[in-house]
Amino acid sequence: MAALPLSPQALDRLAAELLVVRCSGHPADGQRRYPRWELDNASLQRLLQRGVGGVILLGGSAAELRLRTRQLEAWAGAPLLLCADVEEGVGQRFEGASWLVPPLALARIHGEDPALAVDLARRYGACTGREARQLGLNWVLAPVCDVNNNPANPVINVRAWGEDPATAGALAAAFCRGAQAEGVLTCAKHFPGHGDTASDSHLELPLIPHNRERLEAVELPPFRDAIAAGVAAVMTAHLLLPAFDPDHPATLSRAVLTGLLRQELGFEGLVVTDALVMEAIAGRYGPSEAAVLALEAGADLVLMPGDADGAIDAIVTAVASGRLGLERLQASQRRRRRALEVCPADDGGSAPAPLGGLSNGPAPADRALALELVRRSLVSRGRGPVPGGPGVNLIRLDNSLACPFLPAGAPALALPAAAGLRTCLMDGQGPSPWSGDGEAPLALERLGEGPVLLQLFVRGNPFRGRADGPDPWPAVIRQLQAAGRLAGLAVYGSPYAWEALAALLDPQVPAAWSPGQMALAQGELLGRLGFGPQESATPDDEASTAASAATAVDFTD
Amino acid sequence: MAALPLSPQALDRLAAELLVVRCSGHPADGQRRYPRWELDNASLQRLLQRGVGGVILLGGSAAELRLRTRQLEAWAGAPLLLCADVEEGVGQRFEGASWLVPPLALARIHGEDPALAVDLARRYGACTGREARQLGLNWVLAPVCDVNNNPANPVINVRAWGEDPATAGALAAAFCRGAQAEGVLTCAKHFPGHGDTASDSHLELPLIPHNRERLEAVELPPFRDAIAAGVAAVMTAHLLLPAFDPDHPATLSRAVLTGLLRQELGFEGLVVTDALVMEAIAGRYGPSEAAVLALEAGADLVLMPGDADGAIDAIVTAVASGRLGLERLQASQRRRRRALEVCPADDGGSAPAPLGGLSNGPAPADRALALELVRRSLVSRGRGPVPGGPGVNLIRLDNSLACPFLPAGAPALALPAAAGLRTCLMDGQGPSPWSGDGEAPLALERLGEGPVLLQLFVRGNPFRGRADGPDPWPAVIRQLQAAGRLAGLAVYGSPYAWEALAALLDPQVPAAWSPGQMALAQGELLGRLGFGPQESATPDDEASTAASAATAVDFTD
Repeated sequence: MAALPLSPQALDRLAAELLVVRCSGHPADGQRRYPRWELDNASLQRLLQRGVGGVILLGGSAAELRLRTRQLEAWAGAPLLLCADVEEGVGQRFEGASWLVPPLALARIHGEDPALAVDLARRYGACTGREARQLGLNWVLAPVCDVNNNPANPVINVRAWGEDPATAGALAAAFCRGAQAEGVLTCAKHFPGHGDTASDSHLELPLIPHNRERLEAVELPPFRDAIAAGVAAVMTAHLLLPAFDPDHPATLSRAVLTGLLRQELGFEGLVVTDALVMEAIAGRYGPSEAAVLALEAGADLVLMPGDADGAIDAIVTAVASGRLGLERLQASQRRRRRALEVCPADDGGSAPAPLGGLSNGPAPADRALALELVRRSLVSRGRGPVPGGPGVNLIRLDNSLACPFLPAGAPALALPAAAGLRTCLMDGQGPSPWSGDGEAPLALERLGEGPVLLQLFVRGNPFRGRADGPDPWPAVIRQLQAAGRLAGLAVYGSPYAWEALAALLDPQVPAAWSPGQMALAQGELLGRLGFGPQESATPDDEASTAASAATAVDFTD
Repeated sequence: MAALPLSPQALDRLAAELLVVRCSGHPADGQRRYPRWELDNASLQRLLQRGVGGVILLGGSAAELRLRTRQLEAWAGAPLLLCADVEEGVGQRFEGASWLVPPLALARIHGEDPALAVDLARRYGACTGREARQLGLNWVLAPVCDVNNNPANPVINVRAWGEDPATAGALAAAFCRGAQAEGVLTCAKHFPGHGDTASDSHLELPLIPHNRERLEAVELPPFRDAIAAGVAAVMTAHLLLPAFDPDHPATLSRAVLTGLLRQELGFEGLVVTDALVMEAIAGRYGPSEAAVLALEAGADLVLMPGDADGAIDAIVTAVASGRLGLERLQASQRRRRRALEVCPADDGGSAPAPLGGLSNGPAPADRALALELVRRSLVSRGRGPVPGGPGVNLIRLDNSLACPFLPAGAPALALPAAAGLRTCLMDGQGPSPWSGDGEAPLALERLGEGPVLLQLFVRGNPFRGRADGPDPWPAVIRQLQAAGRLAGLAVYGSPYAWEALAALLDPQVPAAWSPGQMALAQGELLGRLGFGPQESATPDDEASTAASAATAVDFTD
């Protein structure tokens, strides 16, 4: 074993500095939603003191995140990379900040007015960057630079900024410029392009069969554009690309990370892996070995190793044995420190109001942006009549127990309730709504009498709902229309689901699509269909009464 | 109009000081769950500057509450009464603090070991008081002093400390002592006793037909005990008691508030109304007139007037016209100020960690108390075999969209999932699970194959679920047993539901009841039935895998 130019302690800290571990944005251990993935506070504190250099946060409210980022900085005693997957505004993950429509909405606007879309993408980035900073984050893990040219993609879909390379590149680059101007780092992902996969790398390792020319034509341009815009980091994809490396997925491939990204694309910023705990990697290599392989391949930072201590030990051992060059790690350390100099984490200092500009939610300009994005991306046809009297508000969603877009009083619940429609939730976790008849799949007698407003909350692969089967919704549309009971259709999320279903609608059925699923989108969409107005300043309007009717027990004890 | 000894400005502030308005514990207007009842920040700030003297908070997490109470104090610029309905620990309302089993659990313990139950009630109060203070509250709106001698009571039920006056009084008094020793005010409610009602004063005005002797025998003793223990406040009930006052409900009755409570019971502390927006009052008097009537009757503080400005104006007008004596208001003002001297609100000062002792959730001693309460109140019979392979985890709950006790990974979901049971939620908001056959009410073919673990989350009137009909559960038990499919029964909440159903069980069916509904109670209860162990430090155990299986998309993007 060769003598090392670093003390064992210094080497240990160097290895630790290159890890990004995950914790909950909720402050208490007992509040963690995914304790398998989220470190407890004692482990977190210990790892930060061992020198771990970054933390990715998920879950909690804006107020909790603000508190949490300060706490992490205090524990570390050194500058940290504090990041989150806030691809659709900080409010997508942390309630109380701006929640914006998914990026693919802007791609559609770009088709009609490229300059407007680019400006909206820049403002989208600025809003996200500004709010991230206000809550103590210095690194936004966005934009997605994958080209969503495969509507069946289960994991990218509406998260992409385009269905073609030019649109995706122009908008992703504008997002980066907008965000970085606010003093946060950004991250182009998932290199070299996760758009054309029909399987999910959270669960298995997808294969991209394309050759070099095709990659140059479709997958790489948005990354080149983001790099030209100065994106601070690039995240690797857990994908196998035999044209470049028949043995290793991109995350662990020297050919992809060092050969393609560093040398050919000339990227000088931070290269970070996608989460190593994802099954595509963890299931094949084990997370500690994967950490060493990723650094060998040219990554600078290792995201969510399954066992951070094990990863540090494995890196130290790999250096000590000569397998991993020390200069390889030191180059990554220099890149990390350079990034932190540009965007130091903020400890909140002596700010009197802990939430700063977010004390009462998003700033007026950001609210206006969120509304403008909803309105410009909303597509509707027809209007009313809104059903009066008994009927059904049939809502398809993924999981009613974890549904941030449907809190008490959400417009998708309250506005139809005010019109007399009974809520009926279908999330695959209730009694079956299916008749077994493929031509008339809904067992209508289980839903109730009267007209049916059908509201589908679908993202990603539009028909991959738990108990939905292969794709019941076209047949449901036909069934409800044949029965004269389809009062309206609302689709929130996937444009592909919308297009498939809208094509089946009778001309008189009012229908609308919003790429966004949040309350703002619900209110605007249902307003277009004739429902509403939503709860206003007048405390006695109907919507308000209906929204509160089911919650009497909550107004006091 | 007589000349007043106060300037108009001073009278206006005096009237305002006697109001307690409601706001959300969430910081941003857009996060309010009940905007009809919760003031927006601009109105709140304006009213506090007008002199409003108290705020009741509901919703949000511990971190948000801490932030919010500081903000309110800053807006008011004067000491405030900051209160919440934290009857079952602060964590009942604000996630991240202790969530304890409902008080009625201790009444059952009291039957076997009175000294132990009294000590637990004192520790229950101490935990609640300490955590309330740490988050900036200075007034705990507990204990409920109603005697729950009517199992059909829709609104008190498990919130009571006893089913008989002696138990309720001993435990409520111990709670008061424990809480007030931590420096918070408490509040005995709902005077003169809401236990023997079968209707809900949130919705209509219940009538208590009892005479004086009966009230002395049953309803009043717990209030006398709480007063003897030094309870700082008493909250009035929206009940009609013709034996005392044929015209006005207790909240507005001079005979009840001044005659009975002040003069006969000798109570010198704060008298606060229950929420004036509740239908029993608001529907009859209008909230502004009700505020004047309540003060006339002898109340010191008016809780949740529907229109705070209107209430202030009405009070000022009543004083100016001579209808309401100024000295009446000034006496209330003196009582309020005396209470604040004893328990000043805390602005958090220069505390470095905003959550103080709650930075990582409840303190170890409070965690131990929560666990001890769950364990001592848990009732079980039989154990396993836990079903292996496919089966159904049938969960009855009130509202899956607003269900703080069933977050992702909650034991009631994760432990049965690890045993192969598919979750099936019944909350009256899904496709109907009912067959229409009263003898065999469940349409079993809609639930799936295999053994059924039945988990009922029921509080209050046990069978008042939205779509449950009159009471389907006894028939469901018989039906599942006849089909040989009842693998186990878990009841969380109502002892009355438990007792009614347990009596029907075949001896070999494992079953258990916990008065608590929180995760801690679920894990302990299911452990008794043979499920588990719950997620542990080992990241690879089965429960953990199952808990995360449905959430792959959440472990990273």
